[in-house]
Amino acid sequence: MDLNPSPLARPFPDLPPIAGVTLRIARARYKTWDRCDLTYAELAEGTAVAGVFTRNVCCSSEVELGREQARLGSARALVVNAGNSNAFTGYRGREAVEAIMAQAAAHLDCNPSDVFVSSTGVIGVPLPQDKAREGLAAAFNAEPCGWQEAAETIGTTDTFAKGAGASAMIGETRVELAAIIKGSGMIAPDMATMLGYIFTDAAIAPDFLQEMLSKANATSFSCITVDSDTSTSDTVLLFATGKAGNARLESWESPGADAFYAALRQVCLDLAQLVVRDGEGAAKFISILVTGAESDASARRIGLAIANSPLVKTAIAGEDANWGRVVMAVGKAGEPADRDKLSIGFGGVWTARDGQPLADYDETPVAAHLKGQDINIAVDIGLGEGHAEVWTCDLTHGYIAINADYRS
Amino acid sequence: MDLNPSPLARPFPDLPPIAGVTLRIARARYKTWDRCDLTYAELAEGTAVAGVFTRNVCCSSEVELGREQARLGSARALVVNAGNSNAFTGYRGREAVEAIMAQAAAHLDCNPSDVFVSSTGVIGVPLPQDKAREGLAAAFNAEPCGWQEAAETIGTTDTFAKGAGASAMIGETRVELAAIIKGSGMIAPDMATMLGYIFTDAAIAPDFLQEMLSKANATSFSCITVDSDTSTSDTVLLFATGKAGNARLESWESPGADAFYAALRQVCLDLAQLVVRDGEGAAKFISILVTGAESDASARRIGLAIANSPLVKTAIAGEDANWGRVVMAVGKAGEPADRDKLSIGFGGVWTARDGQPLADYDETPVAAHLKGQDINIAVDIGLGEGHAEVWTCDLTHGYIAINADYRS
Repeated sequence: MDLNPSPLARPFPDLPPIAGVTLRIARARYKTWDRCDLTYAELAEGTAVAGVFTRNVCCSSEVELGREQARLGSARALVVNAGNSNAFTGYRGREAVEAIMAQAAAHLDCNPSDVFVSSTGVIGVPLPQDKAREGLAAAFNAEPCGWQEAAETIGTTDTFAKGAGASAMIGETRVELAAIIKGSGMIAPDMATMLGYIFTDAAIAPDFLQEMLSKANATSFSCITVDSDTSTSDTVLLFATGKAGNARLESWESPGADAFYAALRQVCLDLAQLVVRDGEGAAKFISILVTGAESDASARRIGLAIANSPLVKTAIAGEDANWGRVVMAVGKAGEPADRDKLSIGFGGVWTARDGQPLADYDETPVAAHLKGQDINIAVDIGLGEGHAEVWTCDLTHGYIAINADYRS
Repeated sequence: MDLNPSPLARPFPDLPPIAGVTLRIARARYKTWDRCDLTYAELAEGTAVAGVFTRNVCCSSEVELGREQARLGSARALVVNAGNSNAFTGYRGREAVEAIMAQAAAHLDCNPSDVFVSSTGVIGVPLPQDKAREGLAAAFNAEPCGWQEAAETIGTTDTFAKGAGASAMIGETRVELAAIIKGSGMIAPDMATMLGYIFTDAAIAPDFLQEMLSKANATSFSCITVDSDTSTSDTVLLFATGKAGNARLESWESPGADAFYAALRQVCLDLAQLVVRDGEGAAKFISILVTGAESDASARRIGLAIANSPLVKTAIAGEDANWGRVVMAVGKAGEPADRDKLSIGFGGVWTARDGQPLADYDETPVAAHLKGQDINIAVDIGLGEGHAEVWTCDLTHGYIAINADYRS
């Protein structure tokens, strides 16, 4: 399927090399295509790792294994297969992952548990071990490549390559972060799983690395939605090679920890929003700010109820400031809310306050705002101090065309 | 907006009069239209009532009041306004409802709490009290009408009138049920709220009436979904006039209670499925049977996760036996499930068993089944004895056209 780039696409950024990370790509030919579809990242000895994974209970073997490996905290390689997700393939799928881990471990003389594997694409077909083996062997011998080539190689139904970067000072040492991600909703038979990989040259203790990633995830990847559906393979991994030579971050008390976290959180947010910008059929990027909820968690659940509402998403597609649908979505979230304290605004203008529409609000700037590509919805619950921001895209004919008109 | 009848429409059934129920309709002209939009049902003295209401916490004054009134157990009248939902209108909306209750109570010389009011249509605009008053006065003087006229009058964006009926023997006495319902998803600015009214001439104690309605609701109205969105006004009321002269049903031990419940449950199921058949843009009616879950409640939640999945709904629209999307939806439900015990079938043919696709299944009957209008999806979780059936419709370009292309 050829897709035009999303109208919300962003150019691939300039990202610096990360000391201790070498990227290579190869053709495993998981599908009948002539493109690179296997990405291999070699990581320096001593690299720490952290991960967050899908909560879908029908997850793939890659996710089951990755979750266990991430707990061990160390990594030497990452292998990403595009074109076959290896999900719902039983024991044969697991064997295929273990074969890749063994092959890379032999090549690097490391533990198989230091080799992380992700797969994305067709489900229900065990990853062909011969193609994986030959593809990985070719990658070992390939010339190193840059971030954009790697981002293109992990992609499946993505309409543009996605990357993000940042830097931070830890004491006198400048550390770099570079990251790539793929995902655009879920397209069958290729589930457009979200796979994200963040690399840094900072030295960070694995437990603290995990703590920071989990915290950043809560207000980034966990606050986006395209269609409420959840892939069986979603994975974000964070690798820290330690090659920058900084004093190792051990906890929030370590000097520079806050600066690194701020950079990490920005990278996570950038990556998450790029996935929304490639949402299937998306024509508008929607930011939803919820304030005044009983807690931040409650605000997030209300925000996601709004973001997942087909009626809200189609209203935005129709450039309609339909606050009534937002009220409905707040009410169905099952969180504390009081109809008569609720306020709703679009593009910085309140259209309803304290449970009643504002008869005299100025429609002109609201109508102009809704014609744009970046839409802001503000919801004040009027009960407490909890707040959250979530991001989604509109629901258009394009979504139906991609998901219904296309046959597996 | 003129809409063609849903391709899944059913003809209005022949329904008998119910002793103790008199229906009348009138023009309140809540919108600039020339159609009847106010329905008035007069109920015999001694009529018992039960109700189930939306769980949306931003509910309308009608729902707030109706919930309290239903607890009192007695009814003398029902007034349904079409064209203005009176939702999100603050104290002025509540005053409008109380004015209608007072007017009908004065007419019938009964308690205002015996007068039930529902409203459906535009939100955010207080129901105009003058129009309501004049419309209701006109209804008092109108000739009695039949079920289909009443069904048409409570409708807003419905594409066909919906009714259902049944009868049961209580001892030697035959009792009748007749019912009407409106709803087709939610269309802004008219939220296509589900409003259902069931009438019977049986004599039934109010507490037991409520018990039976709540039980029937759990496997009918609570098991349908069009787009996962929840109206702020959904209401189902059950009125029992007692005019049939049967020995009053007091509990499950009363002779005939099981027979009456079976008839009631069938009516609830028929009504609920009719709403799905009028789902916005629906081209296919989808039944999802979940077996082998840890409990019935768990099976229902899994069923609704499948039914609400945009990816499953678009796959059915595309006539694609995409079991992978069903797996995904099972996994995201958050209920106990084991990928390797899961089986999925379409139209009576298993396509995946025990967590793996069946390579040799016969695609021909599955493909033929998916070309039809009535689609069956079977999911066996493989863990326990819990089961549930839920109903939904597909997600098509028609849904987007109705909800995004149309502007408020």
